[in-house]
Amino acid sequence: MGLALGDIAIRYGCELHGDPDVVVSRVATLASAGSGSIAFLANPAYRRQLAACRATAVILSAKDADECTTHCLVAANPYAVFARVAQELYPDPVFRAGVHPDAAVGVDCNLSSTCHVAAGAVLGNRVVVGENCYIGPNCVLGDDVRVGRDTQLIANVTLYHKVTLGERCRIHAGTVIGADGFGIAPDEAGWVKVPQIGGVVLGNDVEIGSNCSIDRGAIEDTRLGNGVKLDNMVQIAHNVVIGDHTAIAGQSGVAGSAIVGQRCLIGGSVAISGHIEITDDVSIMGRGSVSKSILTKGVYSSALAVEEAGKWRKIAARVKRLDTMATKLRELENSVKALMGSKGIG
Amino acid sequence: MGLALGDIAIRYGCELHGDPDVVVSRVATLASAGSGSIAFLANPAYRRQLAACRATAVILSAKDADECTTHCLVAANPYAVFARVAQELYPDPVFRAGVHPDAAVGVDCNLSSTCHVAAGAVLGNRVVVGENCYIGPNCVLGDDVRVGRDTQLIANVTLYHKVTLGERCRIHAGTVIGADGFGIAPDEAGWVKVPQIGGVVLGNDVEIGSNCSIDRGAIEDTRLGNGVKLDNMVQIAHNVVIGDHTAIAGQSGVAGSAIVGQRCLIGGSVAISGHIEITDDVSIMGRGSVSKSILTKGVYSSALAVEEAGKWRKIAARVKRLDTMATKLRELENSVKALMGSKGIG
Amino acid sequence: MGLALGDIAIRYGCELHGDPDVVVSRVATLASAGSGSIAFLANPAYRRQLAACRATAVILSAKDADECTTHCLVAANPYAVFARVAQELYPDPVFRAGVHPDAAVGVDCNLSSTCHVAAGAVLGNRVVVGENCYIGPNCVLGDDVRVGRDTQLIANVTLYHKVTLGERCRIHAGTVIGADGFGIAPDEAGWVKVPQIGGVVLGNDVEIGSNCSIDRGAIEDTRLGNGVKLDNMVQIAHNVVIGDHTAIAGQSGVAGSAIVGQRCLIGGSVAISGHIEITDDVSIMGRGSVSKSILTKGVYSSALAVEEAGKWRKIAARVKRLDTMATKLRELENSVKALMGSKGIG
Repeated sequence: MGLALGDIAIRYGCELHGDPDVVVSRVATLASAGSGSIAFLANPAYRRQLAACRATAVILSAKDADECTTHCLVAANPYAVFARVAQELYPDPVFRAGVHPDAAVGVDCNLSSTCHVAAGAVLGNRVVVGENCYIGPNCVLGDDVRVGRDTQLIANVTLYHKVTLGERCRIHAGTVIGADGFGIAPDEAGWVKVPQIGGVVLGNDVEIGSNCSIDRGAIEDTRLGNGVKLDNMVQIAHNVVIGDHTAIAGQSGVAGSAIVGQRCLIGGSVAISGHIEITDDVSIMGRGSVSKSILTKGVYSSALAVEEAGKWRKIAARVKRLDTMATKLRELENSVKALMGSKGIG
Repeated sequence: MGLALGDIAIRYGCELHGDPDVVVSRVATLASAGSGSIAFLANPAYRRQLAACRATAVILSAKDADECTTHCLVAANPYAVFARVAQELYPDPVFRAGVHPDAAVGVDCNLSSTCHVAAGAVLGNRVVVGENCYIGPNCVLGDDVRVGRDTQLIANVTLYHKVTLGERCRIHAGTVIGADGFGIAPDEAGWVKVPQIGGVVLGNDVEIGSNCSIDRGAIEDTRLGNGVKLDNMVQIAHNVVIGDHTAIAGQSGVAGSAIVGQRCLIGGSVAISGHIEITDDVSIMGRGSVSKSILTKGVYSSALAVEEAGKWRKIAARVKRLDTMATKLRELENSVKALMGSKGIG
Repeated sequence: MGLALGDIAIRYGCELHGDPDVVVSRVATLASAGSGSIAFLANPAYRRQLAACRATAVILSAKDADECTTHCLVAANPYAVFARVAQELYPDPVFRAGVHPDAAVGVDCNLSSTCHVAAGAVLGNRVVVGENCYIGPNCVLGDDVRVGRDTQLIANVTLYHKVTLGERCRIHAGTVIGADGFGIAPDEAGWVKVPQIGGVVLGNDVEIGSNCSIDRGAIEDTRLGNGVKLDNMVQIAHNVVIGDHTAIAGQSGVAGSAIVGQRCLIGGSVAISGHIEITDDVSIMGRGSVSKSILTKGVYSSALAVEEAGKWRKIAARVKRLDTMATKLRELENSVKALMGSKGIG
């Protein structure tokens, strides 16, 4: 299978510098590309690889076109065009419709005749699975789960009862959706469990990485909007609401009842406290800690990068004595003020 | 099913302001409650919702009772009373006793006749499962596992060999208990694996969230006391000991051989170093790093909250130059001392 | 089964202080050891336990030998010798070769006659499993997976299609290898998925803890070298390369396209940014954030340890005002300079 450069240009609105009849059949990085492959340049760090690139074609921005020595497709958004070309060249594998004999399905389920339920999958009662869905090996779906059409659960995914997924979602292996939120009330005897009776509702076009945990709501639902993308090992606590098209990188966590707006970019290892609100179009850089609401869009950060350990030890000790330092500074100011006064300078 | 307010008041020692014969049948939040529902007020942030609340009854503290416009139950601990009422209104679903034909069970097991072993569960040899236990779909239990009565493993849980769970525990999906601790000895050729031959012992009433990892001990056991509660994605390394009723929020980790006392509250994303001890009744706020023993009860923290990224960049650069700043300050002190001396002020 | 001290000394090059015919049959900690057991001393924190230790023998360094009151084996590397002795005393359990009738195996697979495929395992098409491998219960292996000889997947492990594992690897439960990398291109409509068509290749003697996520490459492969050791819940993003014998502790993450050298030691909860390079023999202490390349070997850190919360609140506020503090310091310097000038000291 291959794509002609001319067709790509027309389909994705690129300006073609080169031969429209040339065909590409696979994608490659700038550094390793060979004949027949198409590469892209989006991150300026890789621009220096352009000159020696042996790809048949490169998708790039207008500003980089002059340095390209082969056919190129000039795009306003090279990465997005590359993504779509790759989707065409590498279509999802086709699966066979039907329920594998080694799957276990409860009663009163409504499984589309075009969906696939793989070996080892276990479905509870009253489960609804839409057209063209893929329920992978060893997935577990509790009672009353609803999976929208064209959604895929890759393998070993667990959906607790009353979890609802939209259309065209993709849930990676090991992810758990709908476990009890961490609701415990302290009592003289220890902890009393607060039943978690809300559900989880995912919109359309949501992708969840592997080994994520998205808890069900305590009373109302936990909700992820349309087009939300989570990387691996992301924790979404009970009653969190994530707005449309927000993306969250690996190992980040959002604590209970926090509300994250639309189109936010949350870096990796970010910790967002509970019961706060982050408005639309906020970016949090990796390792940031968000403990108060953010009501102004922008980029936020609180990470401290590593230093050589001996040097860092001294810095950390200084941080711990900042209060003393501030006191000394204040005393000095007073002394200097006194000196200046006595000299008639102040 | 419903509960009369009078019965609730008597059962949980509340003072009822209202009609004892009124019945509630479901729980709701203050904001969304309607007729027939019971809500609660514990977090002062939500007090402003009280006036407009349309619940049939609200569980609250004495100090909030005057602002309540409907029936209310005054409790010393509204959240705990709410939890118990919710437990009554939403009892755990009933499961059928028996071993599903699609489960695989090894030899010499002792499974109570009242327990349920679901489809896809795989049990090794000599496994003991107590009365009224629920072993969910696709759970894996290694040889010589012991599960105390009334304990539930929801789905896709893995218990390695020689793991022992107490009574009334609840282990959420994707959690792994008893994997090898990270024991590796450096050697000229790389790493030598240190066999992990200890077990894991959980007390009674332990709840573990989804996708947690609790490693087996290197030589002796890893131990979690009674009433310990873990949120999702918590890592407990080999030979850690967690005291009774300690609660640990999501994505926190406790490194090898650390000892955490009783009734501690560990926030989310906390990192506790190995071979240290935390005494009883210690709270660690979210994102804290604990690298030394804490021998005095209290609240501890080390998180830095996000700032606008440009501002943070400057702050972070200042942090890195704190040593220089301290040096300058010292020089200034000396200069000022000299000046004051020469002026006869000092 | 037991080992004579004389045999241990010869086999592992130790100097025996004691009777070569004495036999030990199990390992123990210094504190709990009894007759018939062998313990070790490597961490100086436990040296004080030596005097009262009741082990039959202790493996230790020359400098500790005098304090030992029982048979001892003096070794250059006591922990590594202990590890090898423990391996002998606690051999891996033997498993039966063969495919369990409750496993599901696709077409055109090549499974060694000496390997074991457990109940509930689901293998895709064209899967190759080498000699003496153990594919545990409920593991899922996608199409075209290759598992080298003597490798073990404990339980509930997911290997996506085209993942290749070397020999003598050990993958713990809940780990997912080969899920899609977090490749999404922003677009006016939200996000466009970038197909992840690379694979994952693990070298020989790799051990991966439980609930880890190792993503497949976007175009080329994600690669872990020989002897790499990962603790639990470690995230390895797409196209990361980890050098031979590097060890990474729990809950750490390496973002996309980062390159980590050989023999690095990455502590727990470390966050390594994407597209950077860490050279060989670098240690990152726990909770460190690495956002730039590290090209000089050494030990690096950026963690801040917890303080009592009230004290920390003041420190954190000071950190946020460091810029103001620096400005004041500069003004003071100028004032003092002026004073000294006017006094003719400067």
